[in-house]
Amino acid sequence: MAFLSTSEAFTTRSQHACFGGVQGFYMHDSSAIGLPMRFSVYQPPQAAHGSVPVVFFLAGLTCTDETFMVKAGAQRIAAELGLMLVACDTSPRDIELPGDRDYWDFGVGAGFYLDATEQPWAKHYRMGSYVLELRELVLKHFSAQAEHVGIMGHSMGGHGALTIGLKNPALFQSVSAFAPIAAPSDCPWGEKAFSHYLGDDRSSWRAYDATALVEDGQRTTALLVDQGLDDQFLINQLHPARFEAACLAAGQPLTLRRQSGYDHGYYFISSFIADHLHHHAQLLR
Amino acid sequence: MAFLSTSEAFTTRSQHACFGGVQGFYMHDSSAIGLPMRFSVYQPPQAAHGSVPVVFFLAGLTCTDETFMVKAGAQRIAAELGLMLVACDTSPRDIELPGDRDYWDFGVGAGFYLDATEQPWAKHYRMGSYVLELRELVLKHFSAQAEHVGIMGHSMGGHGALTIGLKNPALFQSVSAFAPIAAPSDCPWGEKAFSHYLGDDRSSWRAYDATALVEDGQRTTALLVDQGLDDQFLINQLHPARFEAACLAAGQPLTLRRQSGYDHGYYFISSFIADHLHHHAQLLR
Repeated sequence: MAFLSTSEAFTTRSQHACFGGVQGFYMHDSSAIGLPMRFSVYQPPQAAHGSVPVVFFLAGLTCTDETFMVKAGAQRIAAELGLMLVACDTSPRDIELPGDRDYWDFGVGAGFYLDATEQPWAKHYRMGSYVLELRELVLKHFSAQAEHVGIMGHSMGGHGALTIGLKNPALFQSVSAFAPIAAPSDCPWGEKAFSHYLGDDRSSWRAYDATALVEDGQRTTALLVDQGLDDQFLINQLHPARFEAACLAAGQPLTLRRQSGYDHGYYFISSFIADHLHHHAQLLR
Repeated sequence: MAFLSTSEAFTTRSQHACFGGVQGFYMHDSSAIGLPMRFSVYQPPQAAHGSVPVVFFLAGLTCTDETFMVKAGAQRIAAELGLMLVACDTSPRDIELPGDRDYWDFGVGAGFYLDATEQPWAKHYRMGSYVLELRELVLKHFSAQAEHVGIMGHSMGGHGALTIGLKNPALFQSVSAFAPIAAPSDCPWGEKAFSHYLGDDRSSWRAYDATALVEDGQRTTALLVDQGLDDQFLINQLHPARFEAACLAAGQPLTLRRQSGYDHGYYFISSFIADHLHHHAQLLR
C-alpha cells in the first residue's frame, strides 16, 4: 500500500485495506496526557497522491478510538469525498485513579474532552489539550491539509467537537455533532464530570459548555447538529434547544435537525454520517 | 415505526431506526436447534409499503447475529435497493457440550452450517436445517418475498452460503460469498469440524463442501465470490482456486474476484458489500 504506515512518532497496531484506502490503528506517547494513547486514521485513496482535508471524530461515553471506525460506515463516504478521518480515545487508559472504573459515565471512557484542574485527575485527564496534540501529529505525519481540518463527534464527543471547535476556529474550519451534550453544566452527566474534573466553581465550567461558549461570544463556521427524537437521553442530558436558543440569540449559524424515530446509537449516526461528511467537505473545499 | 415488531413467533430484543427503515434484533425458540436462537433483520424503508426481496447473511467463526449488522455498513445499500437483510447466529449458544468452548474454531461460534450426525453434537448442532427454518420464519412474519430470497456469507459463512445455496436452488435464487472456506474437506478448519460433527467417513463430508457439491452436480445461479489477496487464511484454509476449477469444469457460472491488498476482516467486506447487494438485487428482481 502506498501509504505511510510507520514513523518514530507512533507505532502501528494494525492496518487494513478499506475502500481503496487504508484503515489504521496506531499508538503514541502523548505529551499532553503523559501516557500512551491510541488513535485511528482512515486514509482515503486520494491520500496516496497528495494531501487531503481531514475530519476528526470524538466518540461518546464508553467508546474507544475504534468505535467510530467499526460502526459508522463512514469510510465509504470518506473515500468518495477524499476526506481523511481521525478518531481518538475517550480518556487516558494506562492509569488507575480512585473510582475511575466505578462508573461508565466518569473516569475511564469519560474524559469529556477537557483539561482537569482537580486532583487526582489534573495530571493525566487532559483530553482537551490532547485533541490539539493529535491534530498536530496527524498534520505532521499523515498526508493531511493543515488549512482544511474539521471536527465532529457524538454525545460526549459532540460536546467535545462543539466546544473545541468554538474555541479554536482557526484550527478547525468545519464543525458538526450527533446528539451532543449541548449544555453540560445543566445535566447530570456534565455536572458529575465537571464537579470532579474542574471543581465546584461553576464559572470555570463555561469554557467547556457549548451553550455558554456561544453566549460568551465564541463563534465558528455554520454548524450542523443531528438529534434523534427517540433518543433515550434527549430529555435529561442533551438539551439541544438551549444550544439552539443561544446560537439564535448570538447569530451563530446552526442547522439543528430533529430526526423522528432515531435513538442515541450508531444506527442513528450511520444513517446521517454522509450528510455530515458532505457538510465538512463543502466547508473544507 | 410502521414495521412489525412483535409476534408470537419471536421476541424483540431491540429495534433501531436506520436509514429510514428498522434494524431489529430478535430471539425465538428454534425447532431445528431445540434451543432459543438469536437473529437480526434489517427492514428497508420500502418494507413499510409492501413485501421486498430478502438476503440472508451467514457470519464467520466467532461471530454472532449482530456482527454483520454492526460492521458491514450494508444497511445504506439495502435501503437504496429495497432489500431486507437477515443474519443468524453461528452456533447454538444455550448448551454446554464437552470442549465446545475450548476452541475458537470449533463448537460455540463455529457451527459450520451443517447438521451434525455425531454425539454429543447431533441433537443441537443443526445449523444447516436452522437456516431453512429461519428462512420460513422470516417469510411468514416479515414483509419478505418468498420467490426472491438470496444468501451470502463470510469465511465459514461463505462456506454456508455456497453449500446451502447449491443444495437449495429453489429456495435461494441468488448466492455470493466473501472469502469462503471453499473446499472445507481439505483444510484444517473444515477437517477439525467435519471429523467431530460428521465423523470419519469422508464421503459424508461432500454434502457440506462447496467444491465437492459442484463436482457432484449441484448448480445454482451465477455466483459472485470476493477474495482478498492479503487474507491471512487464504493459503491454508480457503482454497478458492479449487472451487473455481470445479465451477469451470462443471459449467457453473462464477465470478471470482481477487482483491489486491485486502485481508479477511470486515473492512474487506464493507468495501465490497455494495457489489454483492447489487448482485443479489439484480438476480432477485
